[in-house]
Amino acid sequence: MFSNRTTLSAIFPIFTFTLAVSTDFQSACLDFNPVSLITNSTLRILEHVPANTTLTFPGNDESCARPKQLITNESCRIALTIPTFNSSIIFEIFLPTPAQGFQRGVVLPAPADWTGRFLGTGNGGIDGCIKYEDIAYGLSHGFATTGSNNGHNGTGGKAFLNNLNIVTDFSWRSLHTTAVAGKILTQAFYKKPHDKAYYIGCSGGGRQAIQAASLFPEDYNGIVAGAPGINFNYMSAWRASFYTIAGSKNSTDFIKPETWTRLIHTEILRQCDEIDGVKDGILADASLCAAVFRPEALLCNTNQSSNCLSAKQVDIVRKVYSPLYGEKGELIYPSLQPGAEVQAIQRLLAGSPFSYSEDWFRYAVYRNPEWDPASWTIHDAEVAEELNPANVRSWPDSLTNFKDNGGKLLLYHGGADNQITGFNTERFYNHLSRSMAVTSTEMDTFLRFFRIPGMFHCSGGPGAWMIGQSTSGAVGYDSKRNVLAAIVEWVEKGRKPEVVVGTKYPTRSTYVGGNSSFVDSWVCR
Amino acid sequence: MFSNRTTLSAIFPIFTFTLAVSTDFQSACLDFNPVSLITNSTLRILEHVPANTTLTFPGNDESCARPKQLITNESCRIALTIPTFNSSIIFEIFLPTPAQGFQRGVVLPAPADWTGRFLGTGNGGIDGCIKYEDIAYGLSHGFATTGSNNGHNGTGGKAFLNNLNIVTDFSWRSLHTTAVAGKILTQAFYKKPHDKAYYIGCSGGGRQAIQAASLFPEDYNGIVAGAPGINFNYMSAWRASFYTIAGSKNSTDFIKPETWTRLIHTEILRQCDEIDGVKDGILADASLCAAVFRPEALLCNTNQSSNCLSAKQVDIVRKVYSPLYGEKGELIYPSLQPGAEVQAIQRLLAGSPFSYSEDWFRYAVYRNPEWDPASWTIHDAEVAEELNPANVRSWPDSLTNFKDNGGKLLLYHGGADNQITGFNTERFYNHLSRSMAVTSTEMDTFLRFFRIPGMFHCSGGPGAWMIGQSTSGAVGYDSKRNVLAAIVEWVEKGRKPEVVVGTKYPTRSTYVGGNSSFVDSWVCR
Repeated sequence: MFSNRTTLSAIFPIFTFTLAVSTDFQSACLDFNPVSLITNSTLRILEHVPANTTLTFPGNDESCARPKQLITNESCRIALTIPTFNSSIIFEIFLPTPAQGFQRGVVLPAPADWTGRFLGTGNGGIDGCIKYEDIAYGLSHGFATTGSNNGHNGTGGKAFLNNLNIVTDFSWRSLHTTAVAGKILTQAFYKKPHDKAYYIGCSGGGRQAIQAASLFPEDYNGIVAGAPGINFNYMSAWRASFYTIAGSKNSTDFIKPETWTRLIHTEILRQCDEIDGVKDGILADASLCAAVFRPEALLCNTNQSSNCLSAKQVDIVRKVYSPLYGEKGELIYPSLQPGAEVQAIQRLLAGSPFSYSEDWFRYAVYRNPEWDPASWTIHDAEVAEELNPANVRSWPDSLTNFKDNGGKLLLYHGGADNQITGFNTERFYNHLSRSMAVTSTEMDTFLRFFRIPGMFHCSGGPGAWMIGQSTSGAVGYDSKRNVLAAIVEWVEKGRKPEVVVGTKYPTRSTYVGGNSSFVDSWVCR
Repeated sequence: MFSNRTTLSAIFPIFTFTLAVSTDFQSACLDFNPVSLITNSTLRILEHVPANTTLTFPGNDESCARPKQLITNESCRIALTIPTFNSSIIFEIFLPTPAQGFQRGVVLPAPADWTGRFLGTGNGGIDGCIKYEDIAYGLSHGFATTGSNNGHNGTGGKAFLNNLNIVTDFSWRSLHTTAVAGKILTQAFYKKPHDKAYYIGCSGGGRQAIQAASLFPEDYNGIVAGAPGINFNYMSAWRASFYTIAGSKNSTDFIKPETWTRLIHTEILRQCDEIDGVKDGILADASLCAAVFRPEALLCNTNQSSNCLSAKQVDIVRKVYSPLYGEKGELIYPSLQPGAEVQAIQRLLAGSPFSYSEDWFRYAVYRNPEWDPASWTIHDAEVAEELNPANVRSWPDSLTNFKDNGGKLLLYHGGADNQITGFNTERFYNHLSRSMAVTSTEMDTFLRFFRIPGMFHCSGGPGAWMIGQSTSGAVGYDSKRNVLAAIVEWVEKGRKPEVVVGTKYPTRSTYVGGNSSFVDSWVCR
């Protein structure tokens, strides 16, 4: 359908070309018949999206809180319902303009033209919310970009109740189905297959990224996994534990949000900020702080009743910053990272049940909508892990197949993550190293882990957290500063990423003098 | 018996005086009738010990490995057997020469004359071995110094089998009986009561020190507790766990002693030595190292088989440096301190059962001499803790009575302790702070905790470990360098110890520049 563009470009003046191309791309989009290519699928949307369109999503579950999205780049949007086994997913793909589009004649392709690359995007929490912002981001860099509702709609988990197929979609099936369908449609639309496939996701999407590398090692050549919600059953247990540790917001010793942000956070910085040698409000390595932080320093004196903590509250703070262990003495999940409290007050420390965990235990583990999150004990962690609904664990012992397929994985995690402790990703890295029996040097050939000091969950925080992970973290397309560009360069040019915003694992950022804002003032130790 | 000395000193020349005094003190000693003062006791030894006598202990259990002891100071030695309830203890007291002895006429008393002070000394492990070296040390500083066999002889625990009274002596009764009897004899011998009573002990003796402060808060005014074996049941479990983690010395992945001392220790220093800012072979705060040390860095490459670790061995190393948690998800015991491996190869990492734990579980917990230490699991920790034989736990929630009695407690623990992790004493300090709801400032009025970087168990190590804790750690009698002088000064002059070898809790030694051997090159943070 784009075959005779070059010919046309020789005949018409530029202005006409552009119109003609738009029209041509638009026609090609609207003439496309995706349903014929994906068995049993039904069409939800087929539309041509002009550049700088703000799409609205009237049918989208309100809990997704994504009523609209600016799509900066012209594209063809296809949304399907694809049946899975006794379930179905909502699938979307946004196809960018083709690079050899005749509208640009002999000039270089614009960045947003199709690069031949395919991109999968992930979800968040336990949700079925397409991250349109990630799709827009991928599209802006010329990827044919897919997303799905992961088998159910909205942020809640009620759909899991007595429907293991929806749990299965959530765990891995929507992920794989989306990759397969997306690639079929891409090839059909452009009349040639994609060159390389990538995946980018954070949080729940980070978990999906690890599932892809583990279970479908040929689906993606390059994967960016941010703050991954891996060891999912244990993670859900850990998150559930906070309500029983911190108590409800009406309980006597409940620690108020402003106490966390002012008193406790200030004390954490007082005790820990200078461990890395510089006082800048960022803990270069939160592990060091977790090892030595003493909440007892905040105990009320005999004559003091404000700006201090009761012994019970000190106990709560200590538990919040302690790892969670199970009934066999095994580590369930490492501790929250000191520094995360500033944001963790929004959910984990809010004095109410953590909704994802509440729903996971209610609908997927116990299949009992009456299950009370206040009744949570460590035994529930064992039950969830043993049941491991639909193999959701996402804690592989090996990524050998992915590695042998030439796959590259870029892992990153914030150092002050308020929803999933970054310590767990350090643990994952070490776990893989042991279980695969590969050294860091060997690991470097297919997996690199970057710790981002002072970064909250997926984005935000006092640290330099913008690393090209999504629209909100967009920082230009330099591979030293942008994880998406970095994974492309690694896969396509073989140049493995060495630094991302000055932080590299397994080493540690240490201040060595000079202006602490400059990368040269820090060395990796 | 010393009543007419002053008169005599006016009559005879000095030389004669000295002879006369020796004779007089010797007579007083040999004429003393301790048995008449301690109900149902029997005399074992009553002897005058001239200065610089090397005593031999022919009746002492060989396992005590204390065949002889140099006693530098003239003294009167009394050894009794004192019945306790259906058991008995061997009690000893060494009484120094009286300060007003006429032999010195008008000159100042020698340091080894009786200062009016009373001193209790502790034992070690689960043993019934009098620490004659501690007695000699106390005596050399003018203390009337006691010790006991704690209810049984030798280093083993077989005596505990089916005899809870011997366990009771071990737990607390010998400790208290010795204090009471010692004070009675001291008063009778000198014809006046002691002024202040002190206790000094390390390891098992450190545990006894905490029991004294907790259960008998009036026995001692000042207590020095080193590397205390507190939370005794859990400590015994933790020590037992090493054999199941490290395996027997014949097992496939057993890590040889030289691998620990060369490969692993070197790697620990590589990763951790400079966290404190200076490369000196000493980890200023082992907690920081434990938080970040990655044994995975030692994994063998594909083509490597020496100077590296198998994945299984890396797993062992990681477990060795991980805390031990129990069946309720509770912390049983914190991890071994990185740096301790150099010495821990002697016992915890030796590939054989840890004898104290083996005996404790066999004879005191399970009362089954066939119990196999290779069968140990985390459940055994729960059994021991629940049984808590003879209240041996030694993990008080409060030292209020001791504090209210004006008692002072100086706690110290090495930063590379190879038998009892110093992290547990940090934990005890924080536990007390929370359970008593006292701030560090308030704690400072009666308890100070000093962490000694690079110190092994009770003595030795790359750090500056000589702190006046015993004969082997004797460093002069300056209260800034000597913990015994420090506790005396605190009790008698009210000057609380601020530094011991430059390390003070809850702060951390941090290098700030200059010669790292000088105290001014380090600040407390």
